[in-house]
Amino acid sequence: MCIRKYSDILCVNNCSYSIESFSSNNPLFICVISYTKTSEISGITVAGSKPELIKYTPAADSEFLYYGRCRCINNVPATPDGKPTPAIITKAALELADIPFLVVNAGSKIKPGIPCVTFDLEHGKNILYGEAMSLEQVTKAFDYGISLGRQLSKTNDTIVIGESIPGGTTTAFGVLTALGVDARFKISSSMQKNPHAIKNRVIDRCIKREKILIGGLKNDPFMAISKFGDPMLPAVAGISSGVINSGAKVILAGGTQMSAVIAILKLLSHCSLERICIATTSYVAFDNSSGLISLIRSISENIPIYAANLHMQYSSKPGLRAFAEGFVKEGVGAGGASIAAILKSRGKINGKILLRAVESEYEAHIEKKGASHS
Amino acid sequence: MCIRKYSDILCVNNCSYSIESFSSNNPLFICVISYTKTSEISGITVAGSKPELIKYTPAADSEFLYYGRCRCINNVPATPDGKPTPAIITKAALELADIPFLVVNAGSKIKPGIPCVTFDLEHGKNILYGEAMSLEQVTKAFDYGISLGRQLSKTNDTIVIGESIPGGTTTAFGVLTALGVDARFKISSSMQKNPHAIKNRVIDRCIKREKILIGGLKNDPFMAISKFGDPMLPAVAGISSGVINSGAKVILAGGTQMSAVIAILKLLSHCSLERICIATTSYVAFDNSSGLISLIRSISENIPIYAANLHMQYSSKPGLRAFAEGFVKEGVGAGGASIAAILKSRGKINGKILLRAVESEYEAHIEKKGASHS
Repeated sequence: MCIRKYSDILCVNNCSYSIESFSSNNPLFICVISYTKTSEISGITVAGSKPELIKYTPAADSEFLYYGRCRCINNVPATPDGKPTPAIITKAALELADIPFLVVNAGSKIKPGIPCVTFDLEHGKNILYGEAMSLEQVTKAFDYGISLGRQLSKTNDTIVIGESIPGGTTTAFGVLTALGVDARFKISSSMQKNPHAIKNRVIDRCIKREKILIGGLKNDPFMAISKFGDPMLPAVAGISSGVINSGAKVILAGGTQMSAVIAILKLLSHCSLERICIATTSYVAFDNSSGLISLIRSISENIPIYAANLHMQYSSKPGLRAFAEGFVKEGVGAGGASIAAILKSRGKINGKILLRAVESEYEAHIEKKGASHS
Repeated sequence: MCIRKYSDILCVNNCSYSIESFSSNNPLFICVISYTKTSEISGITVAGSKPELIKYTPAADSEFLYYGRCRCINNVPATPDGKPTPAIITKAALELADIPFLVVNAGSKIKPGIPCVTFDLEHGKNILYGEAMSLEQVTKAFDYGISLGRQLSKTNDTIVIGESIPGGTTTAFGVLTALGVDARFKISSSMQKNPHAIKNRVIDRCIKREKILIGGLKNDPFMAISKFGDPMLPAVAGISSGVINSGAKVILAGGTQMSAVIAILKLLSHCSLERICIATTSYVAFDNSSGLISLIRSISENIPIYAANLHMQYSSKPGLRAFAEGFVKEGVGAGGASIAAILKSRGKINGKILLRAVESEYEAHIEKKGASHS
């Protein structure tokens, strides 16, 4: 780890790339919302205050970014014990730095009550029981992503891409495995106690059923997504490809799920890995129960990882301190949006200023209503 | 009419506003696609090679902008006698000046095969038989428009808004009437022989049925849209409002339909009419069978109208010469996109250069396939 000019952006793995090269006056944030029925496997995710609310989380997260409240559910998405969605960080960062955003619906089960770009995709199926999505849907998600990425990069030189898809770390794990990346015990979780055993069991069963060796789909990343992935992955890979091939930059705002996007892009011959980085929170980057750094190292030597230091351990709000204690940690592009905000402001915004803005959001939208158990 | 620095941009009505004030290095073009069953009234529109294809035209237009071909129908949208969609001009202009675009689906009956922003609206009903759309849908379209306009204007200082909605001049006529603007014989048409008699009959019947005097809904523009309008109108009004209130500029790319948008905005207290203009083709601006200039004059003294001179009378292609002979004339924001292209290039692009690009599109996508009769 090396500390740079922007002291709350930690360069986690690759100091030959300066964070300055991702600096931008006009970044655009995109939140890709999606759904996989894999999230319904018991114990896989806590992205919802009750199991039956999990499917609402992506739509509710995106509504929260727009309105500071949700329309499809009564409260802000939260874990069963009331820890709020990381969208609270994303919203604070985007507003503080006046960063525009668009939501892309790439297979959310619930339609959000906002104007959003739709890729017109079906939600992903449970990979435990068969194919995740058809190859036709994978190709469509990727192609639509390219089209959108091309258009957006005409006026925005940096596109920051976050996601909200409950259960998405497990499908990312599946895709990484099929592409030959050993992701066992490296995949992060929104829980403090990472449920590696469940995830390993799911992926072992899928690999066995499909009679595929680890790395067996190295030459066919779309097939890997079709068998084990989710609609978010080809959508984000497509947008990234469209942006990078237009000469603009991509900040993948997320943790280990975004490593699967990198693995996919690396195997597609027409995609370059220039001008792309991963930006996340320090709570994922330095999480002992997963291994983002080694995961990325095993995919490519050249992908910088940056982590936002949000000082949440010092928050007066227990629901926010929880982020530093291994709960939630990241999501909805929280870390990447924070880094984009720091960069856009040329360091005038820092982790402490961000924390204060997040605390204000917390007071206005969580404490006022009470965290969601509805 | 006065001719300015940009000789192919004609200042039609209000030379106190210089076209320079709408000049932009980073305009964004938005095409709002929609549908009203009013288009199914016999003789109202020729926006489709056969009546049963009319509903496909908005989706097909937007697909054409992306791909140079359509997915939902086999050929490019055309009139029954094979005159092509004005999207051919829009596409040429956007590409020549590298202007990014987004499509907004505000109630299209057919989903386009592209990534597009959806406002999740029902298509409009036939105003001849009752309410066009519920007040809830009008409000939703407007509110979503504001949200989108706000986001987009953070990085684009000028938003150019075009539309594709067959039958939309008749619904615009209805709204104008309810708002107290005398639009009889002033509404334009894609036909050479403007079917004023049919349109007058439709609006007379609607007004009578609703027991509303001309101007009777002056104080309630949303109600006027709900009774006589279509989903495009509140969507475009909302986007415009969001953009203008964020300090950016709006170019309404269209003819007499956009005058209804101006009338709506004028009556909404929280909307300013600063920084907004109408940009169209000379074929609509100086059309003898309609009256855009007097229509706008009766709404507001301060709205400049600009017209692109595309020299189509000199085209070697009969399908393009037709535009100068009173057929098609405008649509899909063709005139506004042309003006934005001329402005963005600081006059390096002019009407003749545009015409050559349109002819290339025509050769590649119309002559190669034959104009649509499928």
